[in-house]
Amino acid sequence: MRNRGQPPVLAVDVMGSDRGPKEILEGVRRALCTRTTAPFRVILVGDGGMIRATIAERRFRSVLSRMEIFHAAEVIGMEESPTKVLRQKKRASMAQAIELVKEGRSDGVLSCGNTGALVALGTVRLRPIEGLDRPALATVIPAIDRRFVLLDVGANPAPTARQLVHSAILGSHYSSVALRIPSPKIGLLSIGTEEGKGNALVQEAHETLKLLASRQIINYRGLIEGFQLFQEDGDSIDVVVCDGFVGNVLLKAMESIAKRLKKFLRKELLRNPLRIFGCLFLGAALRTIRAKLSAERYGAAPLLGLSGAVFKAHGGSDCREICHAVLIAQRFLRAGMGEELHRQVLQAQELLRTAEKEEKVLI
Amino acid sequence: MRNRGQPPVLAVDVMGSDRGPKEILEGVRRALCTRTTAPFRVILVGDGGMIRATIAERRFRSVLSRMEIFHAAEVIGMEESPTKVLRQKKRASMAQAIELVKEGRSDGVLSCGNTGALVALGTVRLRPIEGLDRPALATVIPAIDRRFVLLDVGANPAPTARQLVHSAILGSHYSSVALRIPSPKIGLLSIGTEEGKGNALVQEAHETLKLLASRQIINYRGLIEGFQLFQEDGDSIDVVVCDGFVGNVLLKAMESIAKRLKKFLRKELLRNPLRIFGCLFLGAALRTIRAKLSAERYGAAPLLGLSGAVFKAHGGSDCREICHAVLIAQRFLRAGMGEELHRQVLQAQELLRTAEKEEKVLI
Repeated sequence: MRNRGQPPVLAVDVMGSDRGPKEILEGVRRALCTRTTAPFRVILVGDGGMIRATIAERRFRSVLSRMEIFHAAEVIGMEESPTKVLRQKKRASMAQAIELVKEGRSDGVLSCGNTGALVALGTVRLRPIEGLDRPALATVIPAIDRRFVLLDVGANPAPTARQLVHSAILGSHYSSVALRIPSPKIGLLSIGTEEGKGNALVQEAHETLKLLASRQIINYRGLIEGFQLFQEDGDSIDVVVCDGFVGNVLLKAMESIAKRLKKFLRKELLRNPLRIFGCLFLGAALRTIRAKLSAERYGAAPLLGLSGAVFKAHGGSDCREICHAVLIAQRFLRAGMGEELHRQVLQAQELLRTAEKEEKVLI
Repeated sequence: MRNRGQPPVLAVDVMGSDRGPKEILEGVRRALCTRTTAPFRVILVGDGGMIRATIAERRFRSVLSRMEIFHAAEVIGMEESPTKVLRQKKRASMAQAIELVKEGRSDGVLSCGNTGALVALGTVRLRPIEGLDRPALATVIPAIDRRFVLLDVGANPAPTARQLVHSAILGSHYSSVALRIPSPKIGLLSIGTEEGKGNALVQEAHETLKLLASRQIINYRGLIEGFQLFQEDGDSIDVVVCDGFVGNVLLKAMESIAKRLKKFLRKELLRNPLRIFGCLFLGAALRTIRAKLSAERYGAAPLLGLSGAVFKAHGGSDCREICHAVLIAQRFLRAGMGEELHRQVLQAQELLRTAEKEEKVLI
């Protein structure tokens, strides 16, 4: 970990994006130009010659002093298996960017590449923080006029109850630090909110989470059902906890619905000249609708619980989304992520150990 | 089971709907009036006096001869636990309607009531058909310009691999019989389509399903991911198989998204007079969009795999949706659901037993 006083450093893997490295570099430039943000630095990891050629362009001039280049030309393909990556791709840009975090030269890493590889490399090279077994992949879901953190979305498809509890702590911490939600409301996803519903895993985690809530370690609000995810009401949940299988299916299904709907609306509204004429009067409404259906806006999914910060941006992110991802990442890095979270995890551990002795929960 | 020659009989639980019994009765009337359908009969189960008073109205005259009343005034509340219902609510309309199927006086039952109670009563009173352990609750999801069957959506939250395989067979049969899709394409929901991805349960079921596909028992197309659910392409899946936990979360989340979006679009499009003016030119487009977002249109969810047909309609179904549900149910009953399905289940059993001996699959 770097010194508190210095501005945070983010290693950005510029390779492995569907839109090519230039899109990433432009996104980074925009983030560095954002005036409202406190200063931070980036290390651009990728093909050095290409990066140098791109940032030689005039518009990069004002941010050059805050950029550094780390050459790593090899790229991890989207289809490569994590096991193969761990063994054979040590010199790839993603692996090198993670290495920079491990060596303390950078505080975090942002990559658009292969998610499985990023989870594997992150877990193996950076290791979970003390008290945690595994990291959890979180994502911010835009729910029309609010948003919530969903985790885990695929890092751990078959967690233990203990790991679900850890996800709740990690999600709570991320939500308060990166999204600036004070005392985020946590819900555990199940299929019926009555006591005794759901499966054994959920029941066990539920009991433990209630215990943590009773000690004010997290603001756990109990079991929630699928229909509450997009509900609009006062008591909406900020962090939705589930296993990586459910989370991944849900995330992908939601993205697929939004994409499909956007296309469908477009087709219906522009079907004939009369409708197109009508749309002229809708102007801003259509823009708002399109923006709401663009699920990728909160692009950066953090892999939480490791000793360094790892952010995954969507493979198809454009420069605006990359800019947003960089800003979210640096905000999280700035918060010095470690201490508060660490305290919560250890408190939870302690509490569980006592409870186990008293046979209150079995975990 | 009743004779093949006679028109099918459907017992309709007229109590337990959010909109009251009159809405149900009107829905049933409309279904009976639908001319394109072959004749069928209904037994209206509920408060006899109230039913008699309603169907005394003039518009019921033409269908009176095809209706019968079975008095059962007690109602199962939406919040009552299945265990309590099984013990204490034997005289409730839902329980009595199921009893009519058990006694052979009716071929199937349709209810808007408490899902948990319906699953429990159906399973305990009608029993799974030979070779199956448990029923699966299916639902038809409208995916913009196509639709697919999703199962299980909550009857069995923690199935074995064997039960997932049974769900695939049940879904395939339902899809071909009730939705008239020849050789429906089956997909098993997972979180990565590469071999070895997902969890152990999915992997085990996947191997067995491949075996069934190789013998042409079902048209299994392999593992699918969440983003394929709403994809628009030639090879779209007709039946999506998952465990009852994932299915329930997914179904409720999708319903919640559709509902939320409908409200949001309405608000955005009618925000000011200019936009309202623009909407005048959109006419049919807005109606189409609204209809597509109404997830309840395929309202009746069948509880598959029991020795009698059990259909669950949405608690808030209006008379159009009830009409649709009745028509789907009678079509399924007419197909004499038993034989073909039974043959497939037994074939699968046989195949699995052989494979187990040869240690090809462990199930």
